[in-house]
Amino acid sequence: MGGYTKGHRPDSFIRIHLARVNAIGPGKADLLEAIGQTGSMAAAARRMGMSYRRAWNMVKALNSSFRAPLVETVKGGRSGGSAQLTTTGDDVLRRYRRMEANATEAIATEAVEFRKIIRSP
Amino acid sequence: MGGYTKGHRPDSFIRIHLARVNAIGPGKADLLEAIGQTGSMAAAARRMGMSYRRAWNMVKALNSSFRAPLVETVKGGRSGGSAQLTTTGDDVLRRYRRMEANATEAIATEAVEFRKIIRSP
Repeated sequence: MGGYTKGHRPDSFIRIHLARVNAIGPGKADLLEAIGQTGSMAAAARRMGMSYRRAWNMVKALNSSFRAPLVETVKGGRSGGSAQLTTTGDDVLRRYRRMEANATEAIATEAVEFRKIIRSP
Repeated sequence: MGGYTKGHRPDSFIRIHLARVNAIGPGKADLLEAIGQTGSMAAAARRMGMSYRRAWNMVKALNSSFRAPLVETVKGGRSGGSAQLTTTGDDVLRRYRRMEANATEAIATEAVEFRKIIRSP
């Protein structure tokens, strides 16, 4: 589960499971975002602090979990190949972020109160 | 992370992290609920499909993550000891379930649409 706290507010986040299989969660959403921003699997993996192999396995899982692939890769070339989000990939990421924001917003007030009974580290 | 889909709607759930450490999530909430309902660590572990040892480790983590213990145990006796939720334990579980319900409700409509682009198993 390493890596999926990256890029999130430090104190709270919501992990949304939307199907029997974990089609997408915070880690995969962050990886999609990193691929979209860097245009490279290797750079995205580096940013996530994970191995290329692990990132690639996550992309394979993402591509097979949805009705169309989310990430397109082009092999070879000087930079070792490029990667980009497909239209479906863009759409999935945008919707996931919107649900995450709405869910977080829905519990914001209660979460502040709840956190007061958690022991400080 | 095995076990934490038990007791949840089969197709969707929200995992709420409320602190840097994972103070409580669906698995620990289900375990608290099972302890409250069975009055026994062993019976709660069985219901969760986890070893007694694992359940006990989760309870220790829960008890040290909050400002007061959530679970009280009484050792020995014919039935191998009993366990019950403290007032804080009841409170934490009730608040967690409320946040979970509110977050789920906040994305219900979007989640239905989103799920349509997830490939069926």
